[in-house]
Amino acid sequence: MSHEYHHLLVAVDLTKDSHKVLERAMQIADRNKAKLSIMHTLEPLGFAYGGDIPMDLTSIQDQLDDHAKQRLAEIADTNVDKENQHVVVGMPDTEIHRFAEEQSVDLIVVGSHGRHGFALLLGSTSTGVLHGAQCDVLAVRVGKDGETAE
Amino acid sequence: MSHEYHHLLVAVDLTKDSHKVLERAMQIADRNKAKLSIMHTLEPLGFAYGGDIPMDLTSIQDQLDDHAKQRLAEIADTNVDKENQHVVVGMPDTEIHRFAEEQSVDLIVVGSHGRHGFALLLGSTSTGVLHGAQCDVLAVRVGKDGETAE
Repeated sequence: MSHEYHHLLVAVDLTKDSHKVLERAMQIADRNKAKLSIMHTLEPLGFAYGGDIPMDLTSIQDQLDDHAKQRLAEIADTNVDKENQHVVVGMPDTEIHRFAEEQSVDLIVVGSHGRHGFALLLGSTSTGVLHGAQCDVLAVRVGKDGETAE
Repeated sequence: MSHEYHHLLVAVDLTKDSHKVLERAMQIADRNKAKLSIMHTLEPLGFAYGGDIPMDLTSIQDQLDDHAKQRLAEIADTNVDKENQHVVVGMPDTEIHRFAEEQSVDLIVVGSHGRHGFALLLGSTSTGVLHGAQCDVLAVRVGKDGETAE
């Protein structure tokens, strides 16, 4: 049987849910002998300040960046090569789509909280990722509050 | 390796894209030795008339229903058992979620057009399906105008 996918991108929010989403992505990557990349997007602090980042916030942004990289490395553990771990500053859907197109990703794997209505606007990026994705998207159902459903 | 999924539901719009979406679902169902159900939802004609269906439209609804069943059977061909082919009248996301919960579906497979903005409101049900789904959802990327991307 031919392989369905060659390069998977798993996008995680660094909560405990990330483990379940990564695990599902790993199963698919293993089966397809596909490359596996993992990404976390950090929203730029400036967004909360109307676009201009006060000088004293740049060091905070750096700290957040370092923290995210460390946490992502913990989640990725030995399952994703270091050079395939990415922390990117920007809007999640924009950055995920950009990476996917530049790196010929053919399956994006994200967590989905199964939320309705307003709660959907907070936190979940799965809908944003689905909009405009040029490849397949697998939304892995996870729990509502950073807890997996299992 | 343990099986990831036990019951897949593939939701199709009856366009040519349906073949690609079904094919992907079949690969996954085969690998998991999972049950495969296929569904098309017809919006009730009454929606266009403010909720009341004029008497003379009921026969048209029946004709549309028959036509959809026939088209779905063509698409399903010998790949989905007759008793697992469903044409349901209602809103796609509502009916898909209802079926998924009642029948313990653990993966919903839908087509995704990768559209942005306004065009997304027309035609694509993948976003609606993702909202509130209690299981995994795979959005299979298909072409923009009823043509597959391949």
